[in-house]
Amino acid sequence: MTNQWLDEIKWNADGLVPVIAKDFSTGKVLMLAWMNREALSTTADTGQAVYWSRSRKKLWHKGEQSGHVQHVKEIRLDCDEDAILLVVEQQGGIACHTGRQSCFFRKLEDKQWRIVDRVIKDPSEIYDNSGD
Amino acid sequence: MTNQWLDEIKWNADGLVPVIAKDFSTGKVLMLAWMNREALSTTADTGQAVYWSRSRKKLWHKGEQSGHVQHVKEIRLDCDEDAILLVVEQQGGIACHTGRQSCFFRKLEDKQWRIVDRVIKDPSEIYDNSGD
Repeated sequence: MTNQWLDEIKWNADGLVPVIAKDFSTGKVLMLAWMNREALSTTADTGQAVYWSRSRKKLWHKGEQSGHVQHVKEIRLDCDEDAILLVVEQQGGIACHTGRQSCFFRKLEDKQWRIVDRVIKDPSEIYDNSGD
Repeated sequence: MTNQWLDEIKWNADGLVPVIAKDFSTGKVLMLAWMNREALSTTADTGQAVYWSRSRKKLWHKGEQSGHVQHVKEIRLDCDEDAILLVVEQQGGIACHTGRQSCFFRKLEDKQWRIVDRVIKDPSEIYDNSGD
């Protein structure tokens, strides 16, 4: 009934769907991550992006460590029902764990990946609060 | 040597990587598709987006039927080396096979996927050239 919108999604063999996060203010594509059913359901319910961490194999409330929470403005589904687009307000303006606005900070130039976006905040300042 | 940029990508178990296409002019996220090594290499060499069709299991030169070719302005790689972002000039302003600008034309509202973007051109006009 109320979960039919989740049933309409074509989850992959691992029960996941790729999710693009786009910044509401700047229009920049911030990252691509993955969600399972619970992650997407929680995202819709709470209004904050919750992904599935494939490396840690658990739900990952984006910003839980960094404070760089994503406030969800829109959740969109594509024509094949196998990809999601989130339009988000990115807390702190930083989505990437390297301290950059976007995870897509390397650009192909002369068949080499070159870093073209600057670090806004040093990762050690974002993640290391042990001294406080 | 010259293919090291391809080796740096973390291809999944099927030898694929998810690719986001974003419109250069409007900033809109157009679609999410997949590439294998050959598709990405060809995309870089030709300057036109070539994907891997998972349903047809072959290379898919975007626009081969519709004429809605994507001229590639930038190819970007994310921090985990497992997602690609293409910035493209979308021929005809239509990326979706439904005749819409973007494939992400449905938005979650009250736990239902609602179509919020209009059809620019009827798909029958795009794909049916049999009378010509």
